[in-house]
Amino acid sequence: MPDIQSALDWAREHKDEHLTELVDVLSIPSVSTLPEHKQDIERCANWLADKLRRLNLTTVELKQTPGHPIVYGEWLEAPGKPTVLIYGHYDVQPADPFDEWDSPPFEPTVRDDYLYARGASDMKGQIFGQIKAMEALVLHGGIPFNVKYLIEGEEEIGSENLEAFIDANLDLLKCDFVLNTDAGIYGMNQPGITYSLRGLAYFEIELRGPSKDLHSGRFGGTVYNPANELCRLIAGLHDADGRVTLPGFYDNVRELPQDERDAIAKLPYSDEEWKGMSCSKALHGEKGFSTLERVGVRPCLDVNGIWSGFTGEGAKTVLPAVATAKLSTRLVANQKHTDIPAMLNAYMEANTPEGIDWKVRDLGGGPASTMDRHSPYMKAAEDALRTTFGKDTLFSPEGGSIPVVGMMQEKLGADSIMLGFALPDDGIHGPNERQYVPNFFKGIETYIHYMTSVGA
Amino acid sequence: MPDIQSALDWAREHKDEHLTELVDVLSIPSVSTLPEHKQDIERCANWLADKLRRLNLTTVELKQTPGHPIVYGEWLEAPGKPTVLIYGHYDVQPADPFDEWDSPPFEPTVRDDYLYARGASDMKGQIFGQIKAMEALVLHGGIPFNVKYLIEGEEEIGSENLEAFIDANLDLLKCDFVLNTDAGIYGMNQPGITYSLRGLAYFEIELRGPSKDLHSGRFGGTVYNPANELCRLIAGLHDADGRVTLPGFYDNVRELPQDERDAIAKLPYSDEEWKGMSCSKALHGEKGFSTLERVGVRPCLDVNGIWSGFTGEGAKTVLPAVATAKLSTRLVANQKHTDIPAMLNAYMEANTPEGIDWKVRDLGGGPASTMDRHSPYMKAAEDALRTTFGKDTLFSPEGGSIPVVGMMQEKLGADSIMLGFALPDDGIHGPNERQYVPNFFKGIETYIHYMTSVGA
Repeated sequence: MPDIQSALDWAREHKDEHLTELVDVLSIPSVSTLPEHKQDIERCANWLADKLRRLNLTTVELKQTPGHPIVYGEWLEAPGKPTVLIYGHYDVQPADPFDEWDSPPFEPTVRDDYLYARGASDMKGQIFGQIKAMEALVLHGGIPFNVKYLIEGEEEIGSENLEAFIDANLDLLKCDFVLNTDAGIYGMNQPGITYSLRGLAYFEIELRGPSKDLHSGRFGGTVYNPANELCRLIAGLHDADGRVTLPGFYDNVRELPQDERDAIAKLPYSDEEWKGMSCSKALHGEKGFSTLERVGVRPCLDVNGIWSGFTGEGAKTVLPAVATAKLSTRLVANQKHTDIPAMLNAYMEANTPEGIDWKVRDLGGGPASTMDRHSPYMKAAEDALRTTFGKDTLFSPEGGSIPVVGMMQEKLGADSIMLGFALPDDGIHGPNERQYVPNFFKGIETYIHYMTSVGA
Repeated sequence: MPDIQSALDWAREHKDEHLTELVDVLSIPSVSTLPEHKQDIERCANWLADKLRRLNLTTVELKQTPGHPIVYGEWLEAPGKPTVLIYGHYDVQPADPFDEWDSPPFEPTVRDDYLYARGASDMKGQIFGQIKAMEALVLHGGIPFNVKYLIEGEEEIGSENLEAFIDANLDLLKCDFVLNTDAGIYGMNQPGITYSLRGLAYFEIELRGPSKDLHSGRFGGTVYNPANELCRLIAGLHDADGRVTLPGFYDNVRELPQDERDAIAKLPYSDEEWKGMSCSKALHGEKGFSTLERVGVRPCLDVNGIWSGFTGEGAKTVLPAVATAKLSTRLVANQKHTDIPAMLNAYMEANTPEGIDWKVRDLGGGPASTMDRHSPYMKAAEDALRTTFGKDTLFSPEGGSIPVVGMMQEKLGADSIMLGFALPDDGIHGPNERQYVPNFFKGIETYIHYMTSVGA
């Protein structure tokens, strides 16, 4: 068993080195979506593999995929101890628009306790902090459980090849739970854990009326206008209470236990603040639920895009031949994202007039996932956070989707503990992304406590 | 009084010359919308002025406007006779895509009795035919009434400066009726007159929700989505019977007299044919009316364009900040196009939620107009057509708008007799526009009969 105090002391004594190394990896522009960064991707994967090798793992290798490689490492020499799959990603979002950055995105710069760089918060700061914590343990008694590292290079492009990789490596990746470090806390001094993520089902709907655009004077009032019809069909997807009307949509939605509603109600929150964050003048959603419930534990349906006909300057008197919309549903446990396409197709079939040809393109999605807030691994995370931050952890459901969480729940039967130290205002995906440096260090300490506790 | 037989004989004997001259004017690319054709516009205006000068008018001049000049001519030496304002336009639509033309658009070519050229049918073939008919009368007895020519150069760009010109010249343009030669007949051997035109009121509606695009996971289900709201608002503009729901919309709509319904019912027409012409699999419109009534004498409302959010390939999980639609109403007598903006604004005010900012931009329009099918000037046209074609004239209402007709009714108090010889399948505004040559000549003869009769 590791000597936790020595590990913590070592971590504290080597802060400057940790930061220097983090700056090092943040200098690699591992942008997964841009082909010109292919070499940077390789370089970053190898950089991480080298760090894993310092942990004396039995295996460290790059697993090739049709896209970017997965950094894989394992050490399974702790019989009787749990097996933990540690997940992270080393790829980053593109950094443009570059001129909105106060310092260059790949020249990491510290200002006022923040380290500014693309990937600082999302998520090199998190996965590297976890590796440093593991190094502290390795140097002071060894790894306290069986560990498998899976650090992918395609998270920012939808984890394109991860599903096939998991399918092909179910035994390799078998684990008791996943420690997902692509995560954040509630506030600078307020530990928090996301225990619930919404799923997604995304579609493109296309309606075709006349086989070519028509003159609106010559034919207006006598033929189906696909743009009018598309609006009618979309409008029909909500009722007056803000509920989605797709038959069957709510059938599998999990009933909210009262203790969960109470916990959500206690989260520090105000509608005024939410309005500010959402840049909205008014809030709106499903009747009978609070804003945090609406975003966290209730499903919804939104138009993400729509286009038809003439969209230039001025007036063109055209009846469009085609009208198209992108729309998506956010799903909650226990809705299956794979059930939604059939519901939407049935709705279209029932409600589209015969003169209109329609098509629903399934643009994919992912399952929702809810983790047990009371499991021992969750409890251990709560304790570790309390030890480091001196405060109780807030459990919050999150409106977004992290497909890998649902994927691992579905394929590996493993819950994910979302433990990372990003902050809500780190500006991920935008210019001036940053990581709060004191919490990078607190993160290392929290991981040391957590891993020790999990392996105890 | 002119000697009608001599005039007809002269017209028949000089067919080749008429056609040569028509080819000449069709060779001038008088495209009003393209600045590079400014000189061609001038050239075409002067070409027509020269032709008018051959009619021994007292005045022929180019009236300058902020845009393209109006060719104006007058001869008022027929006291006690009606004053006829002859309207036409000398500008044409752009000819692209050029590679879809079988012969170059400004190198007029005769094939199988059709003359192919941009502007052949719309409408140099018509106004020039009228001028040739007038020349025939001038050479054989003189002009039988008081005449004013107004040939504008901006019809294809919405007659931008015509309204101000009319307003500034109400006395100059005073007349008993307008002979509008921008018109066609029902079929190759079937005379017809359009007696009713719909009006237009065109809008752009913009909804703004959040002040910037949001992540649909982070905020979906808690804020107003302007794209969803726009669809709801547009869907609400029709009821289940296909009627427009704007309060007051039908208040002034003229009741259809039974004899007019009977006349419309007798027009050669089939729904199957209309489906073919409209490239539509099914017809659709206001309950209780036939297709020809729907398009000709009933108003309607259509989306002409809509756009919001993400419209690229694939799935982007965005909640759009803005959603915009272009929509327009086609109006019939006695709806006022200037009443519609207030109705739409009232609807938006009553139905847009408070969290959404909305704006309605009035993109203009024009009045509807219905001409008296039984007036003496209409009767004279019917007679002239019967004489030339040997058949009774079909009176049909038309779905489109010719703003100048409404404008002249409104400002000059003058009905327009729509007498021209274009055919429905002349392909105006598209590639391979054409004029059926035998009807160009029949048109000259019809104008000779008509003018003689009006001046009798």
